[in-house]
Amino acid sequence: MIEMPCRDWLQNYRRDTFTSDLVAAVIVTIMLIPQSLAYALLAGLPAEMGLYASILPLVAYAIFGTSRTLSVGPVAVVSLMTATAVGKVSQSGGVDYATAAVTLALLSGALLALLGLARFGFVTNFLSHPVVSGFITASGILIALSQLRHIFGVQASGETLPALLSSLLPALGDVNLPTLGIGLFSLLFLQGCRSSLGPYLLRLGLTKGAATLITKAAPVAAIALTTLIAFALGLEATGVALVGAIPQGLPAFSVPVVSPELLEALFLPALLIALIGFVESVSVGRTLGAKRGERIDPNQELIGLGAANIASAASGGFPVTGGFSRSVVNFDAGAKTQAASIMTAIGIALTALFLTPALYYLPKATLAATIIVAVSTLIDWRIFKEAWRYDIADFGAVTVTLVMTLGFGVELGVISGVTTSIALHLYRTMRPHFAIVGTVPDTEHYRNVNRHNVVTHKNILSIRIDESLYFANAAFLEELVYSEQAKKPDVEHVILMCPAVNSIDLSALEALHEINRYLSERKITLHLSEVKGPVMDALQRSHFLEQLAGKVYLRHHAAVQELARL
Amino acid sequence: MIEMPCRDWLQNYRRDTFTSDLVAAVIVTIMLIPQSLAYALLAGLPAEMGLYASILPLVAYAIFGTSRTLSVGPVAVVSLMTATAVGKVSQSGGVDYATAAVTLALLSGALLALLGLARFGFVTNFLSHPVVSGFITASGILIALSQLRHIFGVQASGETLPALLSSLLPALGDVNLPTLGIGLFSLLFLQGCRSSLGPYLLRLGLTKGAATLITKAAPVAAIALTTLIAFALGLEATGVALVGAIPQGLPAFSVPVVSPELLEALFLPALLIALIGFVESVSVGRTLGAKRGERIDPNQELIGLGAANIASAASGGFPVTGGFSRSVVNFDAGAKTQAASIMTAIGIALTALFLTPALYYLPKATLAATIIVAVSTLIDWRIFKEAWRYDIADFGAVTVTLVMTLGFGVELGVISGVTTSIALHLYRTMRPHFAIVGTVPDTEHYRNVNRHNVVTHKNILSIRIDESLYFANAAFLEELVYSEQAKKPDVEHVILMCPAVNSIDLSALEALHEINRYLSERKITLHLSEVKGPVMDALQRSHFLEQLAGKVYLRHHAAVQELARL
Repeated sequence: MIEMPCRDWLQNYRRDTFTSDLVAAVIVTIMLIPQSLAYALLAGLPAEMGLYASILPLVAYAIFGTSRTLSVGPVAVVSLMTATAVGKVSQSGGVDYATAAVTLALLSGALLALLGLARFGFVTNFLSHPVVSGFITASGILIALSQLRHIFGVQASGETLPALLSSLLPALGDVNLPTLGIGLFSLLFLQGCRSSLGPYLLRLGLTKGAATLITKAAPVAAIALTTLIAFALGLEATGVALVGAIPQGLPAFSVPVVSPELLEALFLPALLIALIGFVESVSVGRTLGAKRGERIDPNQELIGLGAANIASAASGGFPVTGGFSRSVVNFDAGAKTQAASIMTAIGIALTALFLTPALYYLPKATLAATIIVAVSTLIDWRIFKEAWRYDIADFGAVTVTLVMTLGFGVELGVISGVTTSIALHLYRTMRPHFAIVGTVPDTEHYRNVNRHNVVTHKNILSIRIDESLYFANAAFLEELVYSEQAKKPDVEHVILMCPAVNSIDLSALEALHEINRYLSERKITLHLSEVKGPVMDALQRSHFLEQLAGKVYLRHHAAVQELARL
Repeated sequence: MIEMPCRDWLQNYRRDTFTSDLVAAVIVTIMLIPQSLAYALLAGLPAEMGLYASILPLVAYAIFGTSRTLSVGPVAVVSLMTATAVGKVSQSGGVDYATAAVTLALLSGALLALLGLARFGFVTNFLSHPVVSGFITASGILIALSQLRHIFGVQASGETLPALLSSLLPALGDVNLPTLGIGLFSLLFLQGCRSSLGPYLLRLGLTKGAATLITKAAPVAAIALTTLIAFALGLEATGVALVGAIPQGLPAFSVPVVSPELLEALFLPALLIALIGFVESVSVGRTLGAKRGERIDPNQELIGLGAANIASAASGGFPVTGGFSRSVVNFDAGAKTQAASIMTAIGIALTALFLTPALYYLPKATLAATIIVAVSTLIDWRIFKEAWRYDIADFGAVTVTLVMTLGFGVELGVISGVTTSIALHLYRTMRPHFAIVGTVPDTEHYRNVNRHNVVTHKNILSIRIDESLYFANAAFLEELVYSEQAKKPDVEHVILMCPAVNSIDLSALEALHEINRYLSERKITLHLSEVKGPVMDALQRSHFLEQLAGKVYLRHHAAVQELARL
């Protein structure tokens, strides 16, 4: 059954909710117009595709998504990933660039929806916090660099840091000065508004809401200003790149026809876009939901974002997801339900219908400036410091992700980040913590002989293992027992104390068999103690307990008492 | 520093050790002659390469290896992997088949030695017991099937079960009856010797040693018999495929010249051959070593096997590793040191010098029969039954490995097996076991409320987590706390009891931050209890403890006593 979470809020929809939602929708629409155009530019697509990706996807998410305030549409990182994926395919495969982007949205949407329907939301858990952070920071750097060509008005391209730099630097000789003027003006204007306008307006006595509204409208002001300048000064003739003619009207609704070869080539990029987009979106949704006590259902979120992407593909758009800054603005502006998103979609539709002729003279440098200012917040080095101090494995994962993304592009970046974090996790559990334990005098407690004053017996070796036993640490366990036994020549009994062993897999069971055989050949008896219930259940389904030379004791103390007496 | 474990046994070498080693060497040589020829055939290589791979590699391992009784040389599974890898490259790359096999040995040897020098032996821990078992069984099936064409005297090829069957079945119409006669005779003769000869000889009053020697010589007898038959009856003219002319003499020592493209194409197969060969070899070495109290050093083993493969490449051979049946025979025949292997190498060298003309009339069907009988012991279905009963995840891993190896060949088989076992392990730790706990009356013990009669407090929620916290279960932890808290509306304090939490990574720390924030917004305080020493050390390096609304208690009971009073 496909659920429609929109029923909940539709049933209790009231007039005052409508007013709140309308105000939020107006603010988000004003914010979304430049963003949608800019991210289409970033993805290498015609401007109108940005608008198309901001109409139906919002409606689809409003119906199927679980967050009431998430604002869906084109976002920076996913647009960069789209540019990379589509660039590769259209270079080699001979398909139209725009068709490939639409197909990517369709495939990505289908994967999201399938993962959601199969309740496979857990796969996103493999994207660890350091990997996502490192990836976002690296993407922010790549995005900002990729937009510098529009600021300088030169030809350059590339999907990695070395490629971007080696393409951009030699091209700087051909800089177009009017373009650079527009670009720098936009950058300074936007950055100035972002850092100073809000506080200034508040000092003037405006409410926080009004100040936010005006601040968030800065990109629209930049667009209006630079469009007027470009028109009035006839900058097109001086070589300033303009957005140009945008088809007027709503997107035609169509089912994309795709070839199996294209689907195969786009499969991996679509999956990565789906996963990264989902992780980003859910983290925004969760944060906002927590503030109002609304719960996000990850599997239903997958379906909601899947529907949004399929809707984007069906209406000529490209991959979308929940945007961070836009959703926060939507929330702060008072949006109560997804009706705000539906009204935003109407706002963008009206823009597509009536405002596109006005965008003819909009300089691309202005859009590039809005992108650069927006992604500068993505670049965050604190995670490196934090990881460095906290855990070397996490630092390794974030560094590998950053370096690989910058050096080899977004796809290899994500893949190597995930691989590294899994490998480091396994490496950690491969050499589990253990302790040789003895009795704390006059108690039944057992502690590490190296840290506490404890009593041990000459004929007993008690080893406590602080990790589940599985294939990756099975060999370690064998070596551990053999080397500890070799250190204690008078040992007659080895007791493995297992209170922190949450599972024993077949490889570890094989190792226990081997240890039992090895010790038996040396006239030493292997025992287990404090085996947890589920682990004991599993052992009883094997032949191990029949072959175990010693016993399984419920309490370690009982084992030591019995064996010390012998 | 590269160690030479041979020093140990060389220093104390005595005359009676020499006698033991010589007897073992004679037996192993008799066993190795047909094996080396047969595995060269299996790898698709000329017969002499089998002999070359059985001379210098044995000497190299004798110098650098740590097992005193391991017998190195061509083995079935590695030969199959060689055939697959080399077949792919020589089909597409236009390089000579034999050159590619030599390069594969060189690359595989270099990788083994590097892994050993870097002390990276632990990577082989990723090959879990079910994956190795499933892979060996599938390889045994593929090997036996691939040899049927020699028994029937038809043309067929393929590296997967469907390819082998669809190539072999239509070809059966062209069966060569004299070849089939030789093949079936050899199969029946070998299988008969294997199952009945030993017990029969023992009943005749022979010693166990003599019976073993004669039984293990059965393949040599089969070779002698069928060679004579082929010669006497002039079977070459009837279309029986013979081994034919083998160059007489020792291999020329040469440094293989290799192209970067060939190295790149062979890198992954070489790595897989290195890992599988190492795992097989070490498990034999460990088993035999355990019987005599000799220890195997995995990192030095990597160097030993690496040296053996480099030696194989330098003398025109193909990838080698420690063989199971051969090493067991060597051990049982009384080999005490690697001097036995050096004498075996001399035996094979003498064969290459003087006996090759006698092998001209040897039918390939006889060699195929020795392979089929040998690999029949590799096929072992017990692991399926055992895994099914013991643990569904292990069953999944062994099944995926078997099906993928049979269906898509050895390389994809190993890779998907490893991936599956890692994924299933992570999946298990992704939804860790947990318990809501309460006080066992009149004690300080805390147990699961669902299993024991315990006392709880209305304002306290105590959750015990039985797993280390890391990125894969961070989201689960958040959901768990939120849903348990929602079930208990009067809760003022949530205590996470962490006695089985062996580590907390940065992603899980982020989740704890989030939980702390979420609960604080609801006027609920988060506390921790029984945090292990190393985990506490890590938390102190982060900002978490400053932001934690509640406290960290050493003992859970202290927490409950203090918070219940409030």
